[in-house]
Amino acid sequence: MIHLFEPDKFYLSIGSHPPALRIESGDTVETSTVDAGGFDRNGVSVSGRGNPQTGPIHVDGATPGDVLAVQFSKIWPNRDHGFCRPRIAANVLEPGHDSGVENHDIFNFSLDFGSNTATIKDPSEGLKNLSVPIRPMIGCFGVAPDRGQAISTATSGPHGGNMDYRGFEPGVTAYLPVFVEGALFHIGDGHAWQSDGEILGTGIEISMDVTFTLSVIPQKEIFWPRGQNKDFIFTAGNVRPLDEALQHCSSEMLRWLVDDYDLSLPDANILLGMYVQYDVGNVYDPAYTMICKIPKSVLPEPNKDALVSYSA
Amino acid sequence: MIHLFEPDKFYLSIGSHPPALRIESGDTVETSTVDAGGFDRNGVSVSGRGNPQTGPIHVDGATPGDVLAVQFSKIWPNRDHGFCRPRIAANVLEPGHDSGVENHDIFNFSLDFGSNTATIKDPSEGLKNLSVPIRPMIGCFGVAPDRGQAISTATSGPHGGNMDYRGFEPGVTAYLPVFVEGALFHIGDGHAWQSDGEILGTGIEISMDVTFTLSVIPQKEIFWPRGQNKDFIFTAGNVRPLDEALQHCSSEMLRWLVDDYDLSLPDANILLGMYVQYDVGNVYDPAYTMICKIPKSVLPEPNKDALVSYSA
Amino acid sequence: MIHLFEPDKFYLSIGSHPPALRIESGDTVETSTVDAGGFDRNGVSVSGRGNPQTGPIHVDGATPGDVLAVQFSKIWPNRDHGFCRPRIAANVLEPGHDSGVENHDIFNFSLDFGSNTATIKDPSEGLKNLSVPIRPMIGCFGVAPDRGQAISTATSGPHGGNMDYRGFEPGVTAYLPVFVEGALFHIGDGHAWQSDGEILGTGIEISMDVTFTLSVIPQKEIFWPRGQNKDFIFTAGNVRPLDEALQHCSSEMLRWLVDDYDLSLPDANILLGMYVQYDVGNVYDPAYTMICKIPKSVLPEPNKDALVSYSA
Amino acid sequence: MIHLFEPDKFYLSIGSHPPALRIESGDTVETSTVDAGGFDRNGVSVSGRGNPQTGPIHVDGATPGDVLAVQFSKIWPNRDHGFCRPRIAANVLEPGHDSGVENHDIFNFSLDFGSNTATIKDPSEGLKNLSVPIRPMIGCFGVAPDRGQAISTATSGPHGGNMDYRGFEPGVTAYLPVFVEGALFHIGDGHAWQSDGEILGTGIEISMDVTFTLSVIPQKEIFWPRGQNKDFIFTAGNVRPLDEALQHCSSEMLRWLVDDYDLSLPDANILLGMYVQYDVGNVYDPAYTMICKIPKSVLPEPNKDALVSYSA
Repeated sequence: MIHLFEPDKFYLSIGSHPPALRIESGDTVETSTVDAGGFDRNGVSVSGRGNPQTGPIHVDGATPGDVLAVQFSKIWPNRDHGFCRPRIAANVLEPGHDSGVENHDIFNFSLDFGSNTATIKDPSEGLKNLSVPIRPMIGCFGVAPDRGQAISTATSGPHGGNMDYRGFEPGVTAYLPVFVEGALFHIGDGHAWQSDGEILGTGIEISMDVTFTLSVIPQKEIFWPRGQNKDFIFTAGNVRPLDEALQHCSSEMLRWLVDDYDLSLPDANILLGMYVQYDVGNVYDPAYTMICKIPKSVLPEPNKDALVSYSA
Repeated sequence: MIHLFEPDKFYLSIGSHPPALRIESGDTVETSTVDAGGFDRNGVSVSGRGNPQTGPIHVDGATPGDVLAVQFSKIWPNRDHGFCRPRIAANVLEPGHDSGVENHDIFNFSLDFGSNTATIKDPSEGLKNLSVPIRPMIGCFGVAPDRGQAISTATSGPHGGNMDYRGFEPGVTAYLPVFVEGALFHIGDGHAWQSDGEILGTGIEISMDVTFTLSVIPQKEIFWPRGQNKDFIFTAGNVRPLDEALQHCSSEMLRWLVDDYDLSLPDANILLGMYVQYDVGNVYDPAYTMICKIPKSVLPEPNKDALVSYSA
Repeated sequence: MIHLFEPDKFYLSIGSHPPALRIESGDTVETSTVDAGGFDRNGVSVSGRGNPQTGPIHVDGATPGDVLAVQFSKIWPNRDHGFCRPRIAANVLEPGHDSGVENHDIFNFSLDFGSNTATIKDPSEGLKNLSVPIRPMIGCFGVAPDRGQAISTATSGPHGGNMDYRGFEPGVTAYLPVFVEGALFHIGDGHAWQSDGEILGTGIEISMDVTFTLSVIPQKEIFWPRGQNKDFIFTAGNVRPLDEALQHCSSEMLRWLVDDYDLSLPDANILLGMYVQYDVGNVYDPAYTMICKIPKSVLPEPNKDALVSYSA
Repeated sequence: MIHLFEPDKFYLSIGSHPPALRIESGDTVETSTVDAGGFDRNGVSVSGRGNPQTGPIHVDGATPGDVLAVQFSKIWPNRDHGFCRPRIAANVLEPGHDSGVENHDIFNFSLDFGSNTATIKDPSEGLKNLSVPIRPMIGCFGVAPDRGQAISTATSGPHGGNMDYRGFEPGVTAYLPVFVEGALFHIGDGHAWQSDGEILGTGIEISMDVTFTLSVIPQKEIFWPRGQNKDFIFTAGNVRPLDEALQHCSSEMLRWLVDDYDLSLPDANILLGMYVQYDVGNVYDPAYTMICKIPKSVLPEPNKDALVSYSA
């Protein structure tokens, strides 16, 4: 079933807020997200700033210990202008290295849906040729955490959240551990473009039309967000420092290889050691995100209980 | 001029050891390296273990404050077998996450120069299809540091060293700061294959035939190793933790953009923020290596004093 | 005014939960806390495990931008037995260093209020002389954070939380930034004894009788928890890694010296540099805690708006 | 035997430099060190800057696998003026937190050997009462590392080096692993006063008269520097980040408790967990230093092979 959902309330934390929509496992939701500053498709401020979330969406039957699969079929800007910040974050540069950016005004970008590119409005001479493709992604999505927690949409964790990883794009299926009844899915903070690390503290921030399918995979233990696209399976570690984020995503991948691909643990060591690829998700937010990837082409057949085998 | 050089003495630290060869700036050296364990092309142990280095090579005229450009034209295995270790390093996994590898015997690989692939000898059932392309790289190279230091070839720093980055491959030109008269270039630790992070503590370790050209770029200030290949310019930060390695390579790239591409510092913030890509070099050695890359296609024309403009 | 408050509901997160008690600024509360596992003075389980909190207490008139002063006059065990865990946390030891503890049963301690000491029940031969003084402290207390957040009592942050610092003991006044109307103070997780770092993941966990006075200091900007005892003023940085926790508490102290002691910023650099002392609060929880201290004896007179000058 | 040794050559790295003095195990050396900038007791520049070292001293019979015990009986300023830097290091403050110190001139201190205090020359109004006791310590000492290495006196490691820990003072015996024949002991960088962390990048830098006894403890395995004073045994972890330094000193202490005090590993977990104290040595140098201490009063009797039982 497809639900057309028009959000009218937005949250700045991911938690056990009252559900805005109730769906069944396998249902698809067509909705929209506002930009990081709370501005919608019409450029109207409809929420406070800081990655306001559409949702939460209650998925009937989801219970703690399950996994929620989030299949992103569409993420596309629903307006023709976005913005980014002008300064590399101080924590990305050497201590005491001055970024040299004194004017903190945001940069506005115009999107051209003919060429599918974004360009800076009123660029300086040095940036007058800067034009990036529209490559939409979603910066923040997740499920309500346990212990009655509600976690700021500035940060991320095992529940997902503000991972700001450019790989969360259309065609990806993400997997999140379910902590509460109904899972309570939230989504927001679209970027028309972002490179590694989100080192400006922003991508090109914009409101989006999004379509995704939420499915419950019963009683499957995962500790951190996972995902797959056409070519890779991947895991996310969301924490500071980057070293620890890398430990989490690497451990999560090792568990995945053993659980779902019937590899012995020693064989999984070798396979991961031979083929691992790391992506830096973000190094700006309170929790950094490191991604551990492995190409599907080098994996054995997944078993019948594998995450990637599941279909709604 | 081309120097054919047959090494007969190897060092386990990079420092002001007596030069094994003296060349002029712009000269090319054809030589060989032994594997990480000190075994040569014939499988004969000719050095103690731990990334023994061929060299040092004294480049006449190189003085502190200069840059040494190292143009790698050939890195290719000179024997048909290599090895890797079987276990993901404990520091790459969550604290207390047991890798489950009890047999620490190395894995031996056979190289087939017809198909240009490497396969495990006597694989387990789970790994019997594992075959990787031969994609040679050099794990460790560098110049003598200052203060009379000699730094272990297990680790890396501003002088280069054991960066274990798979991007140091044929076709790359690396740039190193010169700290002593003659620069004193060292090289060793070839890998037939390695993925991100060197998380097994090894790639496929093997002896190599190597050809490279060493050129002095006079009085140019760089703080960390840099490089370029056909598509990218890149910088390396070599230190623990990974967060700090990322700070160094990011700062170094920001300096590069301003110095060599005539960008204002604010414009360089935006350009780097929009296009940066990070590669995880290694997360195994005493110093980790993070790489900051930017595509040449998005850069302005380099100025006449730019590193990439220099030709011998 | 003194409020005798008997808690009957406990929270596992610190957030905007319904107030259990409403008081005025300057009022004193006499209440109790259950142990980390949810057991009360009678050894009865009254809550789920994980540092259940007494509260929240709504302080009338507290508004965002204020500071809440928490004057601890009493923290004392209300039963004669506690427990600790038997194993040094894996993240405190070198990667791969096996703690060698296979039996994860907790250690029980008997408290003797004659000698004011705690001793292990049924000790091994090697530990039969182990006896520690009763030196009570409170592991976790804090105020509701902003953005509608509710943060697990396993961790800590600018709002306080599970700092597990042995210096939060009777005689201390702690200062917390107020994020929501009424501040919403929570408290729990008493330890009869704990050394630096809480490296076993516990102190001697026990239920407590606690008495404290809550006062609102209007419109005073602080970013991290602060405190004072008879001899020191101190600040807490609560985050991973330890390096960043140290940055936060050091920066917070530098701000404090300038704001409240009328030192110029350069003079504050020297004073802090000459006299700083650091305590490791905890290196176990999801956020580590580092403490920056400076002896009162070396400080100039505080100004009239200083935190330490404030009296209810 | 006592050797009076007048140094006339100084090294900026700790390594296998030619011995300046040869002694027997158990001999005492009376010598002097220049200040961090290379100035001697007469204020004369006799070396380049950066913690120049007196030595190396070759101890006959010391071989790799031994331990070198360094008993400090005297460390005392041999002139009446020292200096410190004016600015808290950028890496000690939050990223982007400006220390506000624009004048980088050093502060000079006058030492008064009547009151045994040091005071700033020409203080600002705010610092006019600043007076610290003379509490001399040695910032940098160590032995030559393995692999032919020579390591900068700016940094530290398993071989000792620039630990800048204020606990290395008269009355302390330090223990270092021996890596090369003769151990090759170096010493320099005295501070008349330093607090935790060396956050200004200096203590009060001064030249010193030093007296110490060097003894070889044969074939005893230690991995990191250790020490004892009247009240404590302690270990040093020297590396970045601080989290990893803490892991090394904690693991080293756990090994020490089991090896020398005949505790079972589980008992050692509890003992360390109950009594550990951490000191922040330095958070300025390329390697940070964290100290793990345990009071002698809570330890069992050391066994006959214990480090602390050894006497020359």
